[in-house]
Amino acid sequence: MLQNPHAVMHIQDPASQRLTWNKPPKSVLVIKKIQDASLLQPFKELCVFLTEQKNMIVYVESKVLADTAIAGDESFGAVIQKFCTFREDLDDISNRVDFIICLGGDGTLLYASSLFQESVPPVMAFHLGSLGFLTPFKFDTYQSQVTQIIEGNTAIILRSRLRVRVVKESREKKSIIMTNGDSEGSRKSMQYQVLNEVVVDRGPSSYLSNVDLFLDGHLITTVQGDGVIVSTPTGSTAYAVAAGASMIHPNVPAIMITPICPHSLSFRPIVVPAGVELKIMLSRDARNTAWVSFDGRKRQEICHGDSITITTSCFPVPSICFRDPVNDWFESLSQCLHWNVRKKQNYLSSEEEEF
Amino acid sequence: MLQNPHAVMHIQDPASQRLTWNKPPKSVLVIKKIQDASLLQPFKELCVFLTEQKNMIVYVESKVLADTAIAGDESFGAVIQKFCTFREDLDDISNRVDFIICLGGDGTLLYASSLFQESVPPVMAFHLGSLGFLTPFKFDTYQSQVTQIIEGNTAIILRSRLRVRVVKESREKKSIIMTNGDSEGSRKSMQYQVLNEVVVDRGPSSYLSNVDLFLDGHLITTVQGDGVIVSTPTGSTAYAVAAGASMIHPNVPAIMITPICPHSLSFRPIVVPAGVELKIMLSRDARNTAWVSFDGRKRQEICHGDSITITTSCFPVPSICFRDPVNDWFESLSQCLHWNVRKKQNYLSSEEEEF
Amino acid sequence: MLQNPHAVMHIQDPASQRLTWNKPPKSVLVIKKIQDASLLQPFKELCVFLTEQKNMIVYVESKVLADTAIAGDESFGAVIQKFCTFREDLDDISNRVDFIICLGGDGTLLYASSLFQESVPPVMAFHLGSLGFLTPFKFDTYQSQVTQIIEGNTAIILRSRLRVRVVKESREKKSIIMTNGDSEGSRKSMQYQVLNEVVVDRGPSSYLSNVDLFLDGHLITTVQGDGVIVSTPTGSTAYAVAAGASMIHPNVPAIMITPICPHSLSFRPIVVPAGVELKIMLSRDARNTAWVSFDGRKRQEICHGDSITITTSCFPVPSICFRDPVNDWFESLSQCLHWNVRKKQNYLSSEEEEF
Amino acid sequence: MLQNPHAVMHIQDPASQRLTWNKPPKSVLVIKKIQDASLLQPFKELCVFLTEQKNMIVYVESKVLADTAIAGDESFGAVIQKFCTFREDLDDISNRVDFIICLGGDGTLLYASSLFQESVPPVMAFHLGSLGFLTPFKFDTYQSQVTQIIEGNTAIILRSRLRVRVVKESREKKSIIMTNGDSEGSRKSMQYQVLNEVVVDRGPSSYLSNVDLFLDGHLITTVQGDGVIVSTPTGSTAYAVAAGASMIHPNVPAIMITPICPHSLSFRPIVVPAGVELKIMLSRDARNTAWVSFDGRKRQEICHGDSITITTSCFPVPSICFRDPVNDWFESLSQCLHWNVRKKQNYLSSEEEEF
Repeated sequence: MLQNPHAVMHIQDPASQRLTWNKPPKSVLVIKKIQDASLLQPFKELCVFLTEQKNMIVYVESKVLADTAIAGDESFGAVIQKFCTFREDLDDISNRVDFIICLGGDGTLLYASSLFQESVPPVMAFHLGSLGFLTPFKFDTYQSQVTQIIEGNTAIILRSRLRVRVVKESREKKSIIMTNGDSEGSRKSMQYQVLNEVVVDRGPSSYLSNVDLFLDGHLITTVQGDGVIVSTPTGSTAYAVAAGASMIHPNVPAIMITPICPHSLSFRPIVVPAGVELKIMLSRDARNTAWVSFDGRKRQEICHGDSITITTSCFPVPSICFRDPVNDWFESLSQCLHWNVRKKQNYLSSEEEEF
Repeated sequence: MLQNPHAVMHIQDPASQRLTWNKPPKSVLVIKKIQDASLLQPFKELCVFLTEQKNMIVYVESKVLADTAIAGDESFGAVIQKFCTFREDLDDISNRVDFIICLGGDGTLLYASSLFQESVPPVMAFHLGSLGFLTPFKFDTYQSQVTQIIEGNTAIILRSRLRVRVVKESREKKSIIMTNGDSEGSRKSMQYQVLNEVVVDRGPSSYLSNVDLFLDGHLITTVQGDGVIVSTPTGSTAYAVAAGASMIHPNVPAIMITPICPHSLSFRPIVVPAGVELKIMLSRDARNTAWVSFDGRKRQEICHGDSITITTSCFPVPSICFRDPVNDWFESLSQCLHWNVRKKQNYLSSEEEEF
Repeated sequence: MLQNPHAVMHIQDPASQRLTWNKPPKSVLVIKKIQDASLLQPFKELCVFLTEQKNMIVYVESKVLADTAIAGDESFGAVIQKFCTFREDLDDISNRVDFIICLGGDGTLLYASSLFQESVPPVMAFHLGSLGFLTPFKFDTYQSQVTQIIEGNTAIILRSRLRVRVVKESREKKSIIMTNGDSEGSRKSMQYQVLNEVVVDRGPSSYLSNVDLFLDGHLITTVQGDGVIVSTPTGSTAYAVAAGASMIHPNVPAIMITPICPHSLSFRPIVVPAGVELKIMLSRDARNTAWVSFDGRKRQEICHGDSITITTSCFPVPSICFRDPVNDWFESLSQCLHWNVRKKQNYLSSEEEEF
Repeated sequence: MLQNPHAVMHIQDPASQRLTWNKPPKSVLVIKKIQDASLLQPFKELCVFLTEQKNMIVYVESKVLADTAIAGDESFGAVIQKFCTFREDLDDISNRVDFIICLGGDGTLLYASSLFQESVPPVMAFHLGSLGFLTPFKFDTYQSQVTQIIEGNTAIILRSRLRVRVVKESREKKSIIMTNGDSEGSRKSMQYQVLNEVVVDRGPSSYLSNVDLFLDGHLITTVQGDGVIVSTPTGSTAYAVAAGASMIHPNVPAIMITPICPHSLSFRPIVVPAGVELKIMLSRDARNTAWVSFDGRKRQEICHGDSITITTSCFPVPSICFRDPVNDWFESLSQCLHWNVRKKQNYLSSEEEEF
């Protein structure tokens, strides 16, 4: 309630969030992009450092050890002995990991995010080649940088995620539904945590997709085009920017809605407040199905009657900053997107300019 | 401090803000666009209603009464007698008004905003012709709607403003400055509260403007082009949208930066969190001055050494909703900007389509 | 050769092309969208009119007569008796038809175009519902309008097409190719005439497509994104406009290249002169194949080594105008795309505006 | 007349134009940007070379010699003696110059264009610093390059210009006009040749401009916004691209119309055929005047009743290519606009990508 109608706003300093530890971190999950030979040596170095220098428990995914270049390296055997391993979708490590280190590209962080459907430990992400939006750390000084994080008090940015629920009509039981009207038992519901974006598109169809977009229960518009992207601010610099969106700093509590090649000239992207509930369904008169994916994964078909419900997740990804949330972001805009990299020129001549 | 690194985010419902009164409102400021004959009758009706039916004290600006169509209307004389009048820039009414009623276009609300450099009373804005972004109310049922607001408990949206400080080197004393280095005494500082946007442009010059943009003290980029717009989310649907920005719901705590006809192809608009401090100055190698305006007003020249410092104001404009913050916004997107108004068509034919 | 270096340009009046007949037209191909019941009655009326009033030979595709609503209509039997029928891809009607009438949407004209791989007879296209870019005629006055065309001297626009050649490495024989180097026998070449656009995209893959674009033999750029559209000016208002292109009047002799959701912020669409030769191939380091389609049809996969060569066709589609090339185009921009349909508003207030 | 309705199009090879001389060129106009000290030495070198090595008659503008760094250089005196000088707007050199050499930026070529209101001699333009769109030659090998051009047979591109006629109501005589209706004597007409663009904007006003746009006598749309740019293809990469236009190769015979910050979301730029006649006038209900400029020069006010008529000029600028029209253009897109300069990245992860 706005008790005093002469409102005063309290604005938080977006650069103020920092990471501190209640007790020293003991366990670390190391995520490595698979099938990239250039990562082998850094991975081994890092694990030796964490295990032997820092006495940390290192978690790795089982399939990482399936690589003979790792499993077969005898000099690395002692470290492997100490690893805790887990299998994706089978073992729950959500409460056993104090922080996460990623080695690879932005994809490793999206993958890390997908492993934690509820709260996510802080993530430190190294780019091994060129800077990514989500991978601000260079590997060459990893020892001092990991040490600093273990000691706490580094800048952190809470990257909001989207909680997405897909409800599917069970098409097998459709005849039954029609008979007895008990639709509840015939639905299938899945839930996802998304760090970049949910994409709904026309898939392999060459017809336009036609989907209805609801906000807090109200139909706000119909998307006719290649599809629509619902993204976090973090995702605004991924697929959304390619589709024409403005770029949003990850500290802004918002959800971005960006059409993909919309048929309408006036369908500009919009930004709505974090916390609203969006719902996407096929339009009644859509001639084709649509397809949905989550951070580029788990691609599936959406048919008449199915729904995709999206809202801001309560479980952001705490992403450790190289410098701070502002400088890291502008650095990645410049490095990854060449944002406003210019050659100075004066396109307008003028009478003042003399010849 | 992020004590528990497994962060949980608490997201506020953006639709939850409502207006209630600690004690019943007694005084109302009525703002009327001048020199628009079609507003005379509604203005008089409204004032009679407020004064005689609702026993409210009505404030109007002195120059409104200079209009002979008002001052010379004998039947309206009794109401005029009861008016409290004030003069812009001379009389301070900031603590004397409980709420504001605007009659006219979006400009009346920008004007109301400019009258209150600190906290702003709630504003109810009527459009007399077509819907505006800031004027959601239709006049024909004004009695019931005003009554409802006086009784309290209506939806409200806090529209953030920008606090802008312009510091100008005093050019007259420049020789003195150079001699004794005491630059402090030779500066002139002005402050503005802005509801839509600050525009820095090349003014009458046909050279490109060259301005540097700083965020929290760091140079983030140089704008080379016609200029740059720093806007609130409210302002994202005004000049910024014409310059290519995405549209931001006014409940998103953010500041938008939009270049005007930038020379660089990659200079996409960006959105930064509310609370950062932006600073704009002429680039060292700028050949021409720039011009700045605030919600389209107070246009002035910016020279080498001058600075424009912009941050989110603590004093938003509490704007009373017709329905609620979400529906009002989408209604105005559709009505004012024809956002995604389409003719259904299938631009892709397909082999499935038979002939 | 520019003999006189002080060049003088002769500019043709774009509105000057008109249709005249050397001898009166005798045969007409009628194309009707299939499976649209609303077209049955107009189709029958038109055929009766052409056959009985105008004594023309009417060509229809065999499958049109497969519709029982047509074949089973006894009152229509006498007209059917006089039809000349043909089967797509089997019967060649290219030299037997004097002009074409289309009933349906823009798709019918794309289909008509695909039937004529060399020269195309003049096309008159009726929209039965809302105006299309390619279907300017309303059906209600069809008699007078068809009569006028048969009599000649109506405005016509020559819509340029693209001639596209796809050369595919024969993957089955790849080992043989490597052995004896005789690649010629192992290639498969196809050719298409395209009225709107050639689209190369990533198909069902969720990786970006990576294709190289050559112009007259030189690599000019690499497209990284969802794909690329090579379109005629006619196609600039179809898929290309959805991907962000400017709109080009069909009389401009040009080819448009428009990226689809490019990863690069600076990848603006470009327009090159008609007559250049473009070639598209997968980039050497592309991890995935691409897919190509022609006016939304004949979708096929493109692998490493395959090439798509595109140039302006010598065989345009002569499209009969309702009024003239200029007015028809602006009418369709307004009707189909709501181009610059506005509500008048003044977003900038000003000190001159008084309150 | 389209005698054979089965039309065949003859497409010219856009790269085929070449410069040859009927008789060897004897006179050359050298244009040098004034007040740029870095150009002095190249200018002198070039003039010595042309005069003493090539025995050419060198024309320079009188004010170039006003520079004491040139006039006062005794070692250069012998060359100066041989110069032919002229004064802008006073002396007509249109039939005395065989070709033109420009030293400086794109502005020198715009200036050269403005000197020739009818046919223009071939222009060779050197950039002394970074590549410009109109200045493809590097100075370091100027001797061999100038020699090659004198010998003839180099690639040339005919850059179309716009012929612009401004007709102004004579406001002083307005009362007389109203009385006797003889408006002819009270009008003032001026004509300009424009290489890049005509810009109509709101000038110093903070109101939107409102101008009507006519094509071949028909009102096609009303521009409400900061203004409108009518440009040649050459100008599409100048101001128009900053306002959002697609980029058009200078060999495409077309005129581009680009709104500047239009109030309407759907006001996409359009491209119309060379040879149409455009007319721009203030809208009847425009509250403010507009301003027009021609290649950034001759800025003037446009009032109610004034008109600006624009069509393709018969007098293009023959611009000598460094390599050829295609390669030069793509080189300048890349160098001047960083067109599609990218960092390779895969924004979409995928289930195929393993971790």
